[in-house]
Amino acid sequence: MAETINIDAARVERYITELATFGKHGETGVWRTVYSPEWVAAQDQVAAWMTEAGLEVRRDAVGNVWGRLEGSEGGKTIVSGSHIDSQRPGGRFDGALGVIAALTAIGALKQQFGQPRRTLEVLSLCEEEASRFPTSNFLGSRAITGAITPEDALEMVGYDGKTMAEAMAAIGLDATKLPEAKRDDIDIFIELHIEQGPILEQADVPVAVVTAINSIRHYVVELTGRSDHAGARPMDMRLDPMAGAAEIALGVIDTALRMGRPAVTTIGRMEVEPGGPAIVPEKVTFTIDARHPDPATRLKLYAAHEAWMRAVAARRGLDLKWTITTDLIPCVCDAELVRTLQDVAREQEIPFTTMSSGAGHDTQRMANIARVAMLFVRSKDGRSHTPAEFTSTVDAVEGIRVLAGGLRRLAY
Amino acid sequence: MAETINIDAARVERYITELATFGKHGETGVWRTVYSPEWVAAQDQVAAWMTEAGLEVRRDAVGNVWGRLEGSEGGKTIVSGSHIDSQRPGGRFDGALGVIAALTAIGALKQQFGQPRRTLEVLSLCEEEASRFPTSNFLGSRAITGAITPEDALEMVGYDGKTMAEAMAAIGLDATKLPEAKRDDIDIFIELHIEQGPILEQADVPVAVVTAINSIRHYVVELTGRSDHAGARPMDMRLDPMAGAAEIALGVIDTALRMGRPAVTTIGRMEVEPGGPAIVPEKVTFTIDARHPDPATRLKLYAAHEAWMRAVAARRGLDLKWTITTDLIPCVCDAELVRTLQDVAREQEIPFTTMSSGAGHDTQRMANIARVAMLFVRSKDGRSHTPAEFTSTVDAVEGIRVLAGGLRRLAY
Repeated sequence: MAETINIDAARVERYITELATFGKHGETGVWRTVYSPEWVAAQDQVAAWMTEAGLEVRRDAVGNVWGRLEGSEGGKTIVSGSHIDSQRPGGRFDGALGVIAALTAIGALKQQFGQPRRTLEVLSLCEEEASRFPTSNFLGSRAITGAITPEDALEMVGYDGKTMAEAMAAIGLDATKLPEAKRDDIDIFIELHIEQGPILEQADVPVAVVTAINSIRHYVVELTGRSDHAGARPMDMRLDPMAGAAEIALGVIDTALRMGRPAVTTIGRMEVEPGGPAIVPEKVTFTIDARHPDPATRLKLYAAHEAWMRAVAARRGLDLKWTITTDLIPCVCDAELVRTLQDVAREQEIPFTTMSSGAGHDTQRMANIARVAMLFVRSKDGRSHTPAEFTSTVDAVEGIRVLAGGLRRLAY
Repeated sequence: MAETINIDAARVERYITELATFGKHGETGVWRTVYSPEWVAAQDQVAAWMTEAGLEVRRDAVGNVWGRLEGSEGGKTIVSGSHIDSQRPGGRFDGALGVIAALTAIGALKQQFGQPRRTLEVLSLCEEEASRFPTSNFLGSRAITGAITPEDALEMVGYDGKTMAEAMAAIGLDATKLPEAKRDDIDIFIELHIEQGPILEQADVPVAVVTAINSIRHYVVELTGRSDHAGARPMDMRLDPMAGAAEIALGVIDTALRMGRPAVTTIGRMEVEPGGPAIVPEKVTFTIDARHPDPATRLKLYAAHEAWMRAVAARRGLDLKWTITTDLIPCVCDAELVRTLQDVAREQEIPFTTMSSGAGHDTQRMANIARVAMLFVRSKDGRSHTPAEFTSTVDAVEGIRVLAGGLRRLAY
């Protein structure tokens, strides 16, 4: 099993470069929102590459493109891929590299080892970024898992004012047929993705095997005190929600820091009312984003944040309310798949680390119907969602070699 | 000198109630911006009351109304008054009570003691609140001290889009004559005002003799870090300006609290960019309002804030910039006048305390051309700039008795 799978680095680089021409934005950026003309052209290109690789191409009701390599034994399939849409603007790698990786890996396997025992599929997902419709994120994988309805497509309105159903109709898709995109015959989904963070760069390795994807919980916190004259109200008689919000923000950030990687907590938004420089605020509203990939530890993180909020509000005599606006459970990758990918990387002597994902991915959705795993490849400066996003072809190929080796073990 | 000066409480209450009908807003509020029809009517009413009290009425170029009681010795004059305009909406007492107090006190002195040795004047200032023109605050006292020009009146644009010159012309005032409002023959200015804070209520006394008016310094602080993915960037690798802003806010508020009364520091505004709940912020911009009435101690307060900002930014690797947008020095009241008012209150057995003013007042401006003093009367719940503002007639009369006693000593 320690045989080398030949991955054509020049072809990987060509795929990355050519795919980036669809929706090209500046020198290195991509602006490719779902169902746009450039998105149609990109999916057509992917379909053409799939055909070139000898895969059977199929487009589903939501616009995902599938390239199938039938296995001799039939049964449930093994799928690899990622999403083809981008941020506005995004880079050339986020999503796209996972499509190219699956295409390259499965194409190479077919070329070198012929028909597999089990069916392999390349998947180019239509949408993940919510960059055209604010609430459409994970559209491609939601359709595959049955988590999107024709009614949703009528209700989702894009930044351009069109509904998703209208946007689909404009390129020949029928939103009433969305349920047909559902699959119940997928056994395994493996996604290769850029890290979007600095951990691999800091560790100086090209590849990571992902063990879990973070939970995400968003709190919207309202802290209310009493507005007062900034000059006339002594400090010792104030009910200042700004002081409370600052103490809470500092405390929750410090809690995540002390808990250590991979716990993360972010205060990304804060609004102060009434907002005059010479007025003690009446109310401060802010968000808390807290994440951890471990199902139990995340609850400890949340509980610590909640206890701190209650303690600060009580001590300062402030009124505290919060709502939880997002609450995603962690997605734990399949232990056997994780071990398989680690084994392959070791055998092929590809330096790797094992980590959890801080960002969300289609894999989370696919986990509802399949066993899942992920691979990360190194991101320059940890950057993503920007044209400055960069992953070297060398690193990409290392990741694709692990992916191909894993698929070889699973399917042949 | 311990004789009682009779102050007619019923008349004080009637003045308060009648003046509040001009620009009446709801049950207890007033909405009376400078040069509005209700403002014209209010100044006309004040002028009529001055005439009734036997004072010689004069209106100056900016719209201030003066009521003069000529002294037998001539010379520089002794003035008392406050402003007639209100917040939108404000209460019945802020400013108005100081006009009523001066009118009542000087009217009572004339009635009981006849012509004074020194000239006494009641002053109803046209504007203090900046509630019609955002940059017009202290307009009345600025005109008297020569700190307003015809050009200013052309440049100041109100919330209604009219320039101050246009608003003046609409009621028969000529902005080119503004310099004529300047006075250089005022020896003493004494202003009675509601406290606008809770200190008298907490101390359970009706009156305060004010020793100084706070300095005010406004910082606008920009703290810049690096925007990152809230999931993918580990806590230990962030340059998070929100954490820095929270630490600074908490620290400066705590510094003022520990320094003790009357130091005050307020963070009234905070803006977070880009402001997404799942994005580590790039930049946080916030205001610091810091005040202290003591010329030396205020500098210690400011220096402590600046040192803390520098320390936090340096430790967290954040870029720190600030601009000082307001920097008013403290206004120290004349020691002899303060002593006179304290002596009068003691002789008349009126409970009083001695304190500094947290809020700004016309007195600060008048201090540029005259010796000044202030009296505060108790505010219910320390509230101001709201229709809920309230001062009892009993407390108002106690304050007016001290004012009248002081003017008696100084002018007779």
